[in-house]
Amino acid sequence: IGNRDFQTSHRTVVLPGLINIAAFVPGIISQSSNDLQTITKTSIASGFSMVRIMPMGIEGSITDAKTLKLAQQNSKRGGYCDYNFLGSLFIPFNHLSDNINKVAAVTTHFDSWPTHKPILTDAKTTDLASILLLASLHSRRIHVTSVTTKEDIRIIALSKEKGLNVTCDVSIYSLYLTRKDYPDCLGLPTPEDQQALWDHLATIDVFSIGSLPYQLCHGTGSTTNPSVGIADALPLLLTSVTENRLTLDDIKTRLYDNPKQIFELHEQVGTSVEVEIDRPYTVPSTSLWSPFVGKTMRGAVQRVTFGDKTVCLDGEMLPIPPLGKDMSTHGSMPVPMSPPMRPLQQSIS
Amino acid sequence: IGNRDFQTSHRTVVLPGLINIAAFVPGIISQSSNDLQTITKTSIASGFSMVRIMPMGIEGSITDAKTLKLAQQNSKRGGYCDYNFLGSLFIPFNHLSDNINKVAAVTTHFDSWPTHKPILTDAKTTDLASILLLASLHSRRIHVTSVTTKEDIRIIALSKEKGLNVTCDVSIYSLYLTRKDYPDCLGLPTPEDQQALWDHLATIDVFSIGSLPYQLCHGTGSTTNPSVGIADALPLLLTSVTENRLTLDDIKTRLYDNPKQIFELHEQVGTSVEVEIDRPYTVPSTSLWSPFVGKTMRGAVQRVTFGDKTVCLDGEMLPIPPLGKDMSTHGSMPVPMSPPMRPLQQSIS
Ligand SMILES: [Zn+2]
Ligand SMILES: [Zn+2]
Ligand SMILES: [Zn+2]
Ligand SMILES: [Zn+2]
Ligand SMILES: [Zn+2]
Ligand SMILES: [Zn+2]
Ligand SMILES: [Zn+2]
Ligand SMILES: [Zn+2]
Repeated sequence: IGNRDFQTSHRTVVLPGLINIAAFVPGIISQSSNDLQTITKTSIASGFSMVRIMPMGIEGSITDAKTLKLAQQNSKRGGYCDYNFLGSLFIPFNHLSDNINKVAAVTTHFDSWPTHKPILTDAKTTDLASILLLASLHSRRIHVTSVTTKEDIRIIALSKEKGLNVTCDVSIYSLYLTRKDYPDCLGLPTPEDQQALWDHLATIDVFSIGSLPYQLCHGTGSTTNPSVGIADALPLLLTSVTENRLTLDDIKTRLYDNPKQIFELHEQVGTSVEVEIDRPYTVPSTSLWSPFVGKTMRGAVQRVTFGDKTVCLDGEMLPIPPLGKDMSTHGSMPVPMSPPMRPLQQSIS
Repeated sequence: IGNRDFQTSHRTVVLPGLINIAAFVPGIISQSSNDLQTITKTSIASGFSMVRIMPMGIEGSITDAKTLKLAQQNSKRGGYCDYNFLGSLFIPFNHLSDNINKVAAVTTHFDSWPTHKPILTDAKTTDLASILLLASLHSRRIHVTSVTTKEDIRIIALSKEKGLNVTCDVSIYSLYLTRKDYPDCLGLPTPEDQQALWDHLATIDVFSIGSLPYQLCHGTGSTTNPSVGIADALPLLLTSVTENRLTLDDIKTRLYDNPKQIFELHEQVGTSVEVEIDRPYTVPSTSLWSPFVGKTMRGAVQRVTFGDKTVCLDGEMLPIPPLGKDMSTHGSMPVPMSPPMRPLQQSIS
């Protein structure tokens, strides 16, 4: 099994097919982009049998019917795991055009969205407090994505205590890397913020991947790849299980039960992930950038079963065609019309 | 009676001594400033027997024990109506130093303030939504001062409906002047915003004077005077009574009952204001700037009784010494430690 050290005591655990609720597809609306194929392939091999595609790409975002069509064109070549473009309205507070009246924009978009569906936002600090109030006033369910600071996780914890209908995710990279390691990456938490995230584990509903690995990779000047960060996710979390910082149930809750419930996702029949824990190995250097190359991990994906077929073994895809389905059209969802966004390129480049 | 047109049908009404909950004292902490004397003199002659002093001056603000002491030095020369420096924590969202984590700042200051006392803020749009959520999460009572936009009055209306403990005031100038009249004065509402304010009269707890008249006067290049705007207040509101846009009770509620209750102010025994309505007159040009010079008003202050003494007749102070008291020390209030503020000078000059 490649460069893993053999050791006798290890266990194999079977988990349901996992869900990445924030898959970043750089070329989501770029003509003839293969990013969706690349990402779904890495995802399934890494234990994620379902991905929710973030509406923001590098060159443009899904904000209306026209851009959605571009994304759907790209998805015609298939995906290796199930994927979902829609299902929640995204209010990208950090990418709203400047000089927009945020309260008016948010309220307008709230009111054009079905009441029982979640609203997703990346709002932080005062914007986060603001959108939480607006959601509460308009009786909306809100999901805060990629929480990174102690203030934000605390405000979410307090809001939950007060009965607000709010959930949140934290990018897995934010749990293992800080600005101490990468001072220029403002997307990462400070060590103090990271500690607060771990202290508020009970407040974190979902672990996500998000665009943080891509941003970090880009920031270090390394060659970017849409798949960056995906393969690191489970080994990092499973290694924390061996260190008693997490339980397997913590992982299952945050990568399966909660994502499924919050975003009303399908049951994936005959789909499971067999992981191995307690067998140490060193993360190898490959063409895919990772900040964890050379580090020791104690958990890995051994086998992925998708629709009753074994599709991956030891982190490698078997030679089979893409079996993933576009789940976006399940139920009849309106196209979420997001507020005008600045291209992510501006903030990432 | 000066330049008033005589007419036979008019009425005289007796109101309690009125309260200006936002008296702007430009030289509040400036050495040897007489602004407090000037303002209290104009206030009592204009029907206001009690003023709450805004903590923000032109050259500096009351933010701690040291600046409070400077303000109290200036008040030793007395005031012509009762005045109050304290009684609420002011969170000056629009003057917070930049790059401050607003949520952290607000929360810290919340938590150092007695629970039953109101917190005052000038927050707008997304900051307003934010502070309303924080107040709700921390079970604090909040008063929003100088509301000017339709979004802000709506969010306050919705918050009240949802049971949040929030009150607000609107500067009287905002009800009678718009940016159509003074395009450069961003402190004024647009005509559409002003209409929304009138439409939400039931949401407006208090009418205030605030710093808007001073800012407007300064903006027009006229000679500023700490008293600007005070004498216009009652004539404007009483004229609206003659036009059936307001009732006398609307005024009494918003300049007496609500201010007294929200800010836990003293009963002023033997104090009353006799006003005359329905007798039209033209606002004369005096050394004190007013945007209403030449306009017809149909309401005026006739007599002010303060502590059972007649102290003013027909808008003029009688030659008596200052009888006003500093009410700040009533009860043992801590000094409200506000977050660091930018001097108002920066935004006003
Ligand atoms: Zn084994
Ligand atoms: Zn609504
Ligand atoms: Zn279904
Ligand atoms: Zn819009
Ligand atoms: Zn008369
Ligand atoms: Zn608190
Ligand atoms: Zn008392
Ligand atoms: Zn402070």
